[in-house]
Amino acid sequence: MDENFLLKTDGARKLYRVAKDLPIIDFHNHLSVAEMAADRQFDNLTQLWLTSDPYKHRLMRICGVEEKYITGSASDYEKFEKYCEIFPLLAGNPVYDWSRMELHRIFGIDTLPTKETAREIYEKAGEMLKTKAFSNNGILAKFNIAYQSPVAMLTDDLSGFNGKTVAPSLRGDNLLCPDDNLKKTLTQRTGIAIGDTDSYIKAVCVLLDTFGAAGCRFADHALDAGFFESNKAGAEMLIRLGAEYAKRNWTLLLHIDAKRATSARLAAVAGPAGGYAAVGGSFDLTGVCDLLGAMEQNGGLPDTVIFPLNMSDQAPLAVLQGSFSQDGVASKVQLGPAWWWCDHALGIRNTMECIASFGAISQFIGMTTDSRSVLSFGRHDYFRRILCAWLDEHNADWQLPQTALEEILIKICYKNALDKINK
Amino acid sequence: MDENFLLKTDGARKLYRVAKDLPIIDFHNHLSVAEMAADRQFDNLTQLWLTSDPYKHRLMRICGVEEKYITGSASDYEKFEKYCEIFPLLAGNPVYDWSRMELHRIFGIDTLPTKETAREIYEKAGEMLKTKAFSNNGILAKFNIAYQSPVAMLTDDLSGFNGKTVAPSLRGDNLLCPDDNLKKTLTQRTGIAIGDTDSYIKAVCVLLDTFGAAGCRFADHALDAGFFESNKAGAEMLIRLGAEYAKRNWTLLLHIDAKRATSARLAAVAGPAGGYAAVGGSFDLTGVCDLLGAMEQNGGLPDTVIFPLNMSDQAPLAVLQGSFSQDGVASKVQLGPAWWWCDHALGIRNTMECIASFGAISQFIGMTTDSRSVLSFGRHDYFRRILCAWLDEHNADWQLPQTALEEILIKICYKNALDKINK
Amino acid sequence: MDENFLLKTDGARKLYRVAKDLPIIDFHNHLSVAEMAADRQFDNLTQLWLTSDPYKHRLMRICGVEEKYITGSASDYEKFEKYCEIFPLLAGNPVYDWSRMELHRIFGIDTLPTKETAREIYEKAGEMLKTKAFSNNGILAKFNIAYQSPVAMLTDDLSGFNGKTVAPSLRGDNLLCPDDNLKKTLTQRTGIAIGDTDSYIKAVCVLLDTFGAAGCRFADHALDAGFFESNKAGAEMLIRLGAEYAKRNWTLLLHIDAKRATSARLAAVAGPAGGYAAVGGSFDLTGVCDLLGAMEQNGGLPDTVIFPLNMSDQAPLAVLQGSFSQDGVASKVQLGPAWWWCDHALGIRNTMECIASFGAISQFIGMTTDSRSVLSFGRHDYFRRILCAWLDEHNADWQLPQTALEEILIKICYKNALDKINK
Repeated sequence: MDENFLLKTDGARKLYRVAKDLPIIDFHNHLSVAEMAADRQFDNLTQLWLTSDPYKHRLMRICGVEEKYITGSASDYEKFEKYCEIFPLLAGNPVYDWSRMELHRIFGIDTLPTKETAREIYEKAGEMLKTKAFSNNGILAKFNIAYQSPVAMLTDDLSGFNGKTVAPSLRGDNLLCPDDNLKKTLTQRTGIAIGDTDSYIKAVCVLLDTFGAAGCRFADHALDAGFFESNKAGAEMLIRLGAEYAKRNWTLLLHIDAKRATSARLAAVAGPAGGYAAVGGSFDLTGVCDLLGAMEQNGGLPDTVIFPLNMSDQAPLAVLQGSFSQDGVASKVQLGPAWWWCDHALGIRNTMECIASFGAISQFIGMTTDSRSVLSFGRHDYFRRILCAWLDEHNADWQLPQTALEEILIKICYKNALDKINK
Repeated sequence: MDENFLLKTDGARKLYRVAKDLPIIDFHNHLSVAEMAADRQFDNLTQLWLTSDPYKHRLMRICGVEEKYITGSASDYEKFEKYCEIFPLLAGNPVYDWSRMELHRIFGIDTLPTKETAREIYEKAGEMLKTKAFSNNGILAKFNIAYQSPVAMLTDDLSGFNGKTVAPSLRGDNLLCPDDNLKKTLTQRTGIAIGDTDSYIKAVCVLLDTFGAAGCRFADHALDAGFFESNKAGAEMLIRLGAEYAKRNWTLLLHIDAKRATSARLAAVAGPAGGYAAVGGSFDLTGVCDLLGAMEQNGGLPDTVIFPLNMSDQAPLAVLQGSFSQDGVASKVQLGPAWWWCDHALGIRNTMECIASFGAISQFIGMTTDSRSVLSFGRHDYFRRILCAWLDEHNADWQLPQTALEEILIKICYKNALDKINK
Repeated sequence: MDENFLLKTDGARKLYRVAKDLPIIDFHNHLSVAEMAADRQFDNLTQLWLTSDPYKHRLMRICGVEEKYITGSASDYEKFEKYCEIFPLLAGNPVYDWSRMELHRIFGIDTLPTKETAREIYEKAGEMLKTKAFSNNGILAKFNIAYQSPVAMLTDDLSGFNGKTVAPSLRGDNLLCPDDNLKKTLTQRTGIAIGDTDSYIKAVCVLLDTFGAAGCRFADHALDAGFFESNKAGAEMLIRLGAEYAKRNWTLLLHIDAKRATSARLAAVAGPAGGYAAVGGSFDLTGVCDLLGAMEQNGGLPDTVIFPLNMSDQAPLAVLQGSFSQDGVASKVQLGPAWWWCDHALGIRNTMECIASFGAISQFIGMTTDSRSVLSFGRHDYFRRILCAWLDEHNADWQLPQTALEEILIKICYKNALDKINK
């Protein structure tokens, strides 16, 4: 790993010197506040790096590694060795870059993982993992994280959040078509008997306020492939909830296009987040647009960030930055950073090209990891390197003065997300 | 602004020396012939540059500028100052490039608009705008426009068109599902009583001939998102009209994919062309193909140029260049230049890549502005610079002799459009 | 033509020295084994190059060449001269590159075809075509073809295949909705009376085994635009057939997105494979995913390679590499090489970017021509040059050691396809 990874020009390196130390705002992730509280010490690099990482499991399967060495009975070291064995075959996938960056940044290891180097890396990292500086929170402390927002369900316990650097964001998926269990819990928690939609929303609002008090600023909904065709009641409910989010100045995150049911075999082997989700066809963009329009007309449109999983939806969604607005509010609706399978150099650059070409890149909310791993904050560095290279490349035509260029850089890396939080 | 803007190589600059002075053919725009007749003198740069430009309004809203400074009560200078204030934040959007090119080319101003430079630019341009050389027609005369074709509705007065350098093109949208008002006007103008479709077409044809006599060579229809699903009668009528266009050797322009109804709030604030239109999902390409096939089988397929707003439709539509043909006619059906929100370097280059890869770039009809502003003819220069860079870059592999390369350049910039007009 | 065509860097050239002599595996094409048996001697370059090439016919039509000179009454030389006349206008289309590569590699001719050079090229190549070294098989022998797999229908005579270097692959399109004729032939060939689906499948299996004995390793199905909407019975049957392919360790090839019915005029003029097919909208990707899932749950999912004709489907289909797997099998489901109209530098590079970014490029099955022409094996060289350039470009970031990089190269050019054959 070279300090100038992805930074091929002097201009890019100059910008990176500004970007690299900016605080991280990670406005949507899946980190466990329970693990923060426990401050787990990892037994070895497999436990930290492989055991819970569906991205790596997925790639091992693609390379024909036997399940025994992925989620099966093999020892932690055998699993690690298998990963190292196929590692050079992963070049081109972001996991290859992330893995090298993590070894470099966290462990100071620049050796390329291979079958031959597996033992050396495992032992070297293993020694470090015994120390407090490499506990769950020790690793977190290696990143300059100003704010992060792990998701919680509406009825979850929020005591693990400090409301300042670690605030909850609402995962709202179960709210669209509430089951009896949810209604029962809501009634227990709020004392509100739930009959019609109004009473349901009333009970939800009590807990939304609890979330608000705990520092919540973001609500997330996944609109999977086929959502508008198959879930009209859900879409209606989302309009109601949108009004509540808007009232609280929260930002709505819409994750669209996912096709989660693929291989039943893998669902059984690898569990619900096992890395086998696919992408549906291009989304019903007219439906997205009509949803936002209906929110605007029915009680309020919250600031909205849309994350498509189908790359061909990035351009049309980038256009929406100009289709909705609120007086004096920057980037009311916008395309989010490259999401999930799209979170690679290709997807990141396409996101930037689309937002710039169809709207204003300076108003882009920037990176969030959406990850379950404490190591993933390094992806902000990946994003920033790509951004610096991209800005420098384009400034050959723009010819902005350095201060103006750096203002855009700082807004995207930090300030725009901060503005949504402080709204 | 540098003379070599977008022209990074010697080869690109050499090509540009050929391209830059070629006459402009702008085969589809929305200029006002009434304003040409009046030859308006603009009060200030805001009146020329901002007041009627939804692209700039849209970007101001994206940057969080208050409506007061966009379409509201602020003074012309205050509006201009606000635009300059956010101007460096627009880098990456084509409006940033266009604005700089317009200041450079029309006013000789190379200063970057900022809050600090606003006054200087406003005053300098303001002085010039007082002179006859900067009237509506004075500005038009700064471009080498051989032919332009502003749209008119079928029943519009055509007296503002000279039929040579300024000819009408037909905007046919209201013809597909004619309302009583249109039918009544048609009867008044033609003396034909309108009952069934045949009598309607007969009356339409009388006015099509009037358009033809006024120099019309192009008919435009917008097939918005959902067209084939929701407007079967309109599609049938378009097949009938297509036969009439074909009979007259007109070229049919199809603008597809737009999703015009977005924010009701913005529609009220900003009017019908207020810059808030969005993009529908990928169009029903099978429907487009079947429409062209049906025209071919039912009286005649006119030469056709298709303009998608969803970039993912550019590649499949480029394929159609080879799917329909007429003996001895070049490029019977083709992908048009990057349209509306797609009219930026990304969209222009993607258009070129698609037409070249799936068909013959040499037969590409080239640029048209589709604009309402007299300044927009500068976009032909933008297009030509990108084209020259693109051709030079690819000729490293093609290794065409310079004359053959220049022949392709001249065809795209000028001759192919001329051939459609002279057909 | 330069030896370093498409190879701009030292690194790319170094990789190409490894790639260029690797044996060719062409796992899906439309070559005629009858013509191999006849070992036809071509009368002239038109007979070899133009008469049966719908790609060139298509481009001649796009350039406005009269049908007389394409499929009509003009002499072979006149047709050749017309093609040369428009040849420089084809720059950017892959046919331009292929044509130059074919002239260079097969005939040692580096002259650019033009109206002026037509006679010289025609005569020089014509002399060579008289010799045995330029017969159908003489030309084939100029390529290092280890294995090729021309398609055959289930009831075709397989005696032309040698089962080793030339093995049949099954074209299964007529099997999904069998007509009476097919059923009758099946009964005649197998002695099985066909009543219900089970008896039909039983008869099909007898001939599948005949194909297997003849060396068949691949079965191909075209799912044209609208397949899942309009052919539910066909989809059901495909699941049944998929189980049979899986049982035999065959690889299933799915060609999706084609919209074959376009111009009825061209269908009459140019025949069923006349180069006028178009691209449907983005495919029903949820349907593809559900089809694979149903195969997995119903008797078996064969290894599968998917070839989309709509480029916007390349990215989402690349994701499927991780959505289905089989224990210990590499790349169970994957995006295939750029198909048909997409088989150009743009499509090839996008395929590579997508497979790398969403999966593992090292497991990519690589190139197949899908062609009807003996000259088309040169497209493997085109693919390899683009691949070498692409790998070298990316290795600036990956920094793989040369041996690891070359391993990936060799896998994509040769070994991955070999593994599917030897499975």
